[in-house]
Amino acid sequence: MTDPALSTLLTRGWALADDGKSIHKRFEFADFVAAFGFMTRVALVAEKRGHHPDWSNSYKVVDVRLSTHDAGGLTDQDIELAQKMDELA
Amino acid sequence: MTDPALSTLLTRGWALADDGKSIHKRFEFADFVAAFGFMTRVALVAEKRGHHPDWSNSYKVVDVRLSTHDAGGLTDQDIELAQKMDELA
Amino acid sequence: MTDPALSTLLTRGWALADDGKSIHKRFEFADFVAAFGFMTRVALVAEKRGHHPDWSNSYKVVDVRLSTHDAGGLTDQDIELAQKMDELA
Amino acid sequence: MTDPALSTLLTRGWALADDGKSIHKRFEFADFVAAFGFMTRVALVAEKRGHHPDWSNSYKVVDVRLSTHDAGGLTDQDIELAQKMDELA
Repeated sequence: MTDPALSTLLTRGWALADDGKSIHKRFEFADFVAAFGFMTRVALVAEKRGHHPDWSNSYKVVDVRLSTHDAGGLTDQDIELAQKMDELA
Repeated sequence: MTDPALSTLLTRGWALADDGKSIHKRFEFADFVAAFGFMTRVALVAEKRGHHPDWSNSYKVVDVRLSTHDAGGLTDQDIELAQKMDELA
Repeated sequence: MTDPALSTLLTRGWALADDGKSIHKRFEFADFVAAFGFMTRVALVAEKRGHHPDWSNSYKVVDVRLSTHDAGGLTDQDIELAQKMDELA
Repeated sequence: MTDPALSTLLTRGWALADDGKSIHKRFEFADFVAAFGFMTRVALVAEKRGHHPDWSNSYKVVDVRLSTHDAGGLTDQDIELAQKMDELA
């Protein structure tokens, strides 16, 4: 993909998986309260869009991976959710 | 009460009920996602402290009232939760 | 309104406001954790639908009022959200 | 560990890591709303206890791993949080 929106994400802490099928980023917060507050805001946005992250949380760290499973790779839905997550963080 | 911490809260949007037994404040956010994200952060803090707000939500507005029911009025627990809510907003 | 779906709700703890413009119900849970877990599930559904409750919470009690403000009264959106809230409780 | 409480957990879907230092379980729900509702209830309990899970979520699946990092292995805090998570699921 050479999408300029993807390129911008890659300058903001997102990384492309080796197989090019997903992007991932680590978000780190002050504490668990801030981390889970972020997850709740993202959950609301994700459920509304019908497009959900694969993510893990360990105390104040949230690791996110975005891919469109139905499409077998990255789509605009991932790019847009990544942009939204940066806004919400 | 003439608690200086309470006085500070009163300069930051909190108001004392006529009967002096509770304080209340309206928090307004950009949208429901931000409002509910705030409520989740507060819920985590409140449950940890064992001291919970009385609150209502209508879309992007959250109205909060704090009182210590067991004590029949305002206590330090309310003052401290109010300070924490201002930090979390 | 004589909607049969509304009639069913009225047998399940929902009440119609005197002005006929909203319905309301009190949900009571075991504790704050259960009450806020319910609110989070409802928040996800509400944000997805773009139709949100007016609600208040005091520890383990959640009071809900549903109305379609844009329409100046009850609509199918309220009936359907009420049904969904009963499922989620 | 030969803790009987641990043995009971192992009969209820929890598994012990090869190194004996953590336990893990997959929780599966009807949908994302149910999965994230569960995570919120657990988050409230975890923050109150000052003991948090390592967990990941993908749509309706929540994978949990419990270990007491400060102690370098399993402790009663993990056993008790595991029991509580089973109750909350």
